[in-house]
Amino acid sequence: VTADATRPPRAVPTVGDLGERGVIDRVRARLPAPPAAVLLGIGDDAAVVAPDRNRADVVTTDALVEHVHFERRYVPPGAIGHKALAVNLSDLAAMGARPRVALLSLVLPPSWPVADLDALAGGFAALAARHRVALVGGNVARSPGPLVVDVAAVGSVHRRRALTRSAARPGDAIYVSGSVGGAAAGLAWLASGAGRAGPDVPGDIRPALDACAERFLRPEPRVRLGLALGGTRSASAAIDLSDGLADALRQVAEASGLGAVIEGAAVPVDPGARWWFERHGADPLDAALAGGEDYELLATVPARRARAFAAAAARAGVRVSRIGVMTAARRVVVARGGREEELPAGFAHFR
Amino acid sequence: VTADATRPPRAVPTVGDLGERGVIDRVRARLPAPPAAVLLGIGDDAAVVAPDRNRADVVTTDALVEHVHFERRYVPPGAIGHKALAVNLSDLAAMGARPRVALLSLVLPPSWPVADLDALAGGFAALAARHRVALVGGNVARSPGPLVVDVAAVGSVHRRRALTRSAARPGDAIYVSGSVGGAAAGLAWLASGAGRAGPDVPGDIRPALDACAERFLRPEPRVRLGLALGGTRSASAAIDLSDGLADALRQVAEASGLGAVIEGAAVPVDPGARWWFERHGADPLDAALAGGEDYELLATVPARRARAFAAAAARAGVRVSRIGVMTAARRVVVARGGREEELPAGFAHFR
Repeated sequence: VTADATRPPRAVPTVGDLGERGVIDRVRARLPAPPAAVLLGIGDDAAVVAPDRNRADVVTTDALVEHVHFERRYVPPGAIGHKALAVNLSDLAAMGARPRVALLSLVLPPSWPVADLDALAGGFAALAARHRVALVGGNVARSPGPLVVDVAAVGSVHRRRALTRSAARPGDAIYVSGSVGGAAAGLAWLASGAGRAGPDVPGDIRPALDACAERFLRPEPRVRLGLALGGTRSASAAIDLSDGLADALRQVAEASGLGAVIEGAAVPVDPGARWWFERHGADPLDAALAGGEDYELLATVPARRARAFAAAAARAGVRVSRIGVMTAARRVVVARGGREEELPAGFAHFR
Repeated sequence: VTADATRPPRAVPTVGDLGERGVIDRVRARLPAPPAAVLLGIGDDAAVVAPDRNRADVVTTDALVEHVHFERRYVPPGAIGHKALAVNLSDLAAMGARPRVALLSLVLPPSWPVADLDALAGGFAALAARHRVALVGGNVARSPGPLVVDVAAVGSVHRRRALTRSAARPGDAIYVSGSVGGAAAGLAWLASGAGRAGPDVPGDIRPALDACAERFLRPEPRVRLGLALGGTRSASAAIDLSDGLADALRQVAEASGLGAVIEGAAVPVDPGARWWFERHGADPLDAALAGGEDYELLATVPARRARAFAAAAARAGVRVSRIGVMTAARRVVVARGGREEELPAGFAHFR
């Protein structure tokens, strides 16, 4: 059920009617029993979790803010719950970490329907169950404005196998998982009304655009790939594509004190995104490089680890594309049509 | 410097001018070097932290929302930063946990002055330094409405010494640290203009009300007391007073399957709060029991541990008051003037 912001606030039960305790109870009702490592879960001042033996904790946080990251008009509440956790699991995956527990902080407009809270909790819980992440705590506050869903996640990694952004070496190959540009095109397609208010879309293109929309709404964090890369030590550096491939590559290059050259033709642009960007007069490659929220992984791979990397990706069931190479020269460029061009700017939620 | 919401948005440098990276850099500039346990700090997809040997992780999160928890008109940005961390450290203290690392998620109106961001980061960093908490990561998002500061904190506790809400026993004495009611009175005093727009206040009462205001603005989490209680196993249960003493006591009673009787005359009502509530026609005891945000600890103590408890409190440098006793009968009441009365309702931020 999609939230309808124009719905009269008293026509349906709202989270304001539930109160803080009621909200917590409804979220809890959607959670499976926690694993044994959760010594104390939801309901006390804090949760107590036994650490993974001989591993380090990996901690991250990321928030989704209404009117900045999504509009309730075209993002159903189940997708908000899914995505709020997914973006955090993606960060853990980029470290090669195994996700373990999460905290969910909800800042809710009191007029929000209870049915939408249930759907949000359901979307969160379904993804959590799939990756065996236990929700161990959180917070509920009233919002005088937008809906804010803030998640903190804790994983674990062998302390010498964390994948950082800063350990790429000159000559390392650059790989990206899956495809890029899909989420940006999907957002544009959704915001345009997904064919209702937007341009005419041929029937055979619709499924590709719907797949882009799904990509934006319910990104699949590359948890298995990240674990496989960390476990096999086959990547020298990794990062997730939250603000776009161009931004991610610049971050790895800067943190590693290097540059990079990518082959434009090798970048796996999503087919639906390619159609959408061309139709709207944008260069598909530039748009795909700049587009945010694909939540794929970018990894750099030393030549001697190429085979191990390919095996790890295959084991994780993820397609990977070799798109370029890290360089000692500190320029980050894309080679296309015989020329080298600067990469486009990344996707900025903040400005 | 107090934020002035009426200031013209372009007259001073704003966080919108800085962008996400600039915001992070300004926060980082105020932090000390992280301890050795932080294997990887701010700047990657996630942070990596070595767990405390033979201890369990304790995780919690809590958010401050503008117009719900504070108004920028009377809460300076340094206090927002202090308090956002303090409320989380208070939760860890209530578990008997040692605080270790924190994540800071900022949802910022782009028009917010950079000077206020600096002050917020400074308030956070000063409290973090005092308790040796390392800020290891976070998130910056734009707000289309209120300022939201969401913190997640991780501590550690001996896995069999975590203080829960649920282990109180009939006959255990009920203690509260410090005094209660001060924060609620301080908030009212600040909201009234702190003497400028409010009622006339005698000169000799002003310092007591200013202390109440400070209590609301910069609560001191009872970290040392919590550690002392956990370490000595002198408390059977503990909780912090975020939503008031009445609410906290009901939570402990409910979680433990018990009731409680407190002696009204034994409740350490803050002197400034007593004056303020009387002046405004409220019953001082009821108001102090209902008032939120004191961030004191409530602990239940078995008779045989009373001496160890007193020694632990003395070592932590915190005054504690014995205010009542846990009962097998599941009523939670206050005895005053020879009668037993229901406790007032707690403080609710959400409804």
